[in-house]
Amino acid sequence: MTGKLAGGCPLPKTQHERVLMAHGGGGRLMQQLIEQVFVPAYGNTALETRHDGAVFHPGAGRLAFTTDAYVVQPLFFPGGDIGELAVYGTVNDLAMCGARPLYLSASFILEEGLPLADLRRVADSMQAAAAAAGVQIVTGDTKVVEHGKADGLYISTAGVGLIEHDLVVAPTSVRPGDAIVISGDVARHGMAIMGVREGLEFESAIESDCAPLNHLVQSLLDAEVEIHCLRDLTRGGLASGIIEIAQTAGMAVQLEESAIPVREDVLGACEILGFDPLYVANEGKFVAFVPADQADAAVAAIRSHPVGSEAAVIGKVCGEDQSGLVTLRSLVGASRVIDLLSGEQLPRIC
Amino acid sequence: MTGKLAGGCPLPKTQHERVLMAHGGGGRLMQQLIEQVFVPAYGNTALETRHDGAVFHPGAGRLAFTTDAYVVQPLFFPGGDIGELAVYGTVNDLAMCGARPLYLSASFILEEGLPLADLRRVADSMQAAAAAAGVQIVTGDTKVVEHGKADGLYISTAGVGLIEHDLVVAPTSVRPGDAIVISGDVARHGMAIMGVREGLEFESAIESDCAPLNHLVQSLLDAEVEIHCLRDLTRGGLASGIIEIAQTAGMAVQLEESAIPVREDVLGACEILGFDPLYVANEGKFVAFVPADQADAAVAAIRSHPVGSEAAVIGKVCGEDQSGLVTLRSLVGASRVIDLLSGEQLPRIC
Repeated sequence: MTGKLAGGCPLPKTQHERVLMAHGGGGRLMQQLIEQVFVPAYGNTALETRHDGAVFHPGAGRLAFTTDAYVVQPLFFPGGDIGELAVYGTVNDLAMCGARPLYLSASFILEEGLPLADLRRVADSMQAAAAAAGVQIVTGDTKVVEHGKADGLYISTAGVGLIEHDLVVAPTSVRPGDAIVISGDVARHGMAIMGVREGLEFESAIESDCAPLNHLVQSLLDAEVEIHCLRDLTRGGLASGIIEIAQTAGMAVQLEESAIPVREDVLGACEILGFDPLYVANEGKFVAFVPADQADAAVAAIRSHPVGSEAAVIGKVCGEDQSGLVTLRSLVGASRVIDLLSGEQLPRIC
Repeated sequence: MTGKLAGGCPLPKTQHERVLMAHGGGGRLMQQLIEQVFVPAYGNTALETRHDGAVFHPGAGRLAFTTDAYVVQPLFFPGGDIGELAVYGTVNDLAMCGARPLYLSASFILEEGLPLADLRRVADSMQAAAAAAGVQIVTGDTKVVEHGKADGLYISTAGVGLIEHDLVVAPTSVRPGDAIVISGDVARHGMAIMGVREGLEFESAIESDCAPLNHLVQSLLDAEVEIHCLRDLTRGGLASGIIEIAQTAGMAVQLEESAIPVREDVLGACEILGFDPLYVANEGKFVAFVPADQADAAVAAIRSHPVGSEAAVIGKVCGEDQSGLVTLRSLVGASRVIDLLSGEQLPRIC
């Protein structure tokens, strides 16, 4: 995030209100945008050096590095917004590597005409999310495209985290007999977006479950749970996350439908709209693959956080299986194979 | 870049040819896109673990971390494309921190209907650029938006680099008397984009100067030049880069117009179109602020690379000055103050 304060003299108010093409040009207007929107929101030493990148001492250990783009529509939705999502999404991807998230970058693609008030709201929301997760946004970039060439704004965040233990948290570490623990109820984020997008009113307000998961993972580590694999359940939902791990690990997995927490109102909304809650996106839920004899300790560790208060064991790894077969035992005891959907039930969910 | 190969069975050709909304959905089509486009292009150990992020041992030292979004239009232009730009841009930002670039992330926002052939071409070009710069693309993400909501594709890259020396390469290290060295001729990238965008034919082909700068910076370090500050001259060109550093450092700077290399044909194109070459974007040029008595060593080190064969001393830091005044002594000896433009002469240049 280069560009320095241009004397601090504010622009006339009429120029202030919306993003202009010139805000992306590397000149005075871009300086003012950085100075008036991003520095007040994210202000920290690394950002304030106004250099081409941030420099830091990470400490000893392996590093995790991840990125995600965010194109959610609408930008603001019940329980969150694109900024919160962009911070928590990258924080959670780092946590799923078993890392303690440290630093985030944020790159913005803004549509000409975007109200600056919206951009400020997003920047403030990102900062609040970063504070909640205990990370710093240390470097960034802004581009502007013509009206109609982006949908308000898109954000890409990347993150660096430190791995302070010797576990290999990855699908390859999954073992036959592992218990699968989920951190809470599924399908809330997708149905919250669906509700606002379609102008539906559900009986009760369904809010996104958007939340940082790094503190929950830290509690698992503090409790000395031997974590084999972690996965947050975003696009494609619980089913896709489990299937991907089963396929990568080459293991057969069985899930117990009755054990999977789904809120009553969310299930109702899914039924009305014809969605399978197992495939609906979450933004604050993850699964942990752990040794069976540590499942109770894992559930207890996750439940020590309000966000994880409904943690439960939902299935197990049955054994090696090249095809990574995932079966779901239904409420009435019948088993069916679950597979990846071709696409996503809800486009632009994150 | 999560998502595993779905058995490798190719889609029918008709579905193959363009990006579909379902390619962004976290299901089977996304797996196939990753498997058929990105893994073949970037294949490396970190990427192939198919986890939420990449994990690596960075080695001892400070780390640099940076990000940029790329929205250049057109996607393919003389001398480069959006993929090459996205790799070199982030590599160069790390190099400007005095870091050795190590790992890159890439997040894509694809427009529904984008020809997959274009995406493959971009992915291949990114891999070639990564190889040329000596970095690995280790993690990524893909989102798809509806036709008309992106201009073909946008890319955000982030990068991590290692700082293996004790220099503080930053505007705050600039000192009175420092010499300013440029690595070569200016304004080629902007005029190359302008030419193709407007369908102009210049007398000779003007190609973008898009290139990795990390090897040039390494040569400066190897020659034990005491680098004070580095800046690549992208959006806003040479003038904006120098003004930003002068303002941040609180130093007055004088540039010698006669010393600034501009190719004859580029100067001609600028004159015809009414652009000032000092403000036109470059994608393979930087300035170094170094002690005056090391200026010759710096020029020699940069000239040891073909990309830096026209390196030259173009100015000096005159002394402390709160306002960061930058003056340009013209060919006839008159001095004028140069200041930031309000926006960019050419939108969506990178």
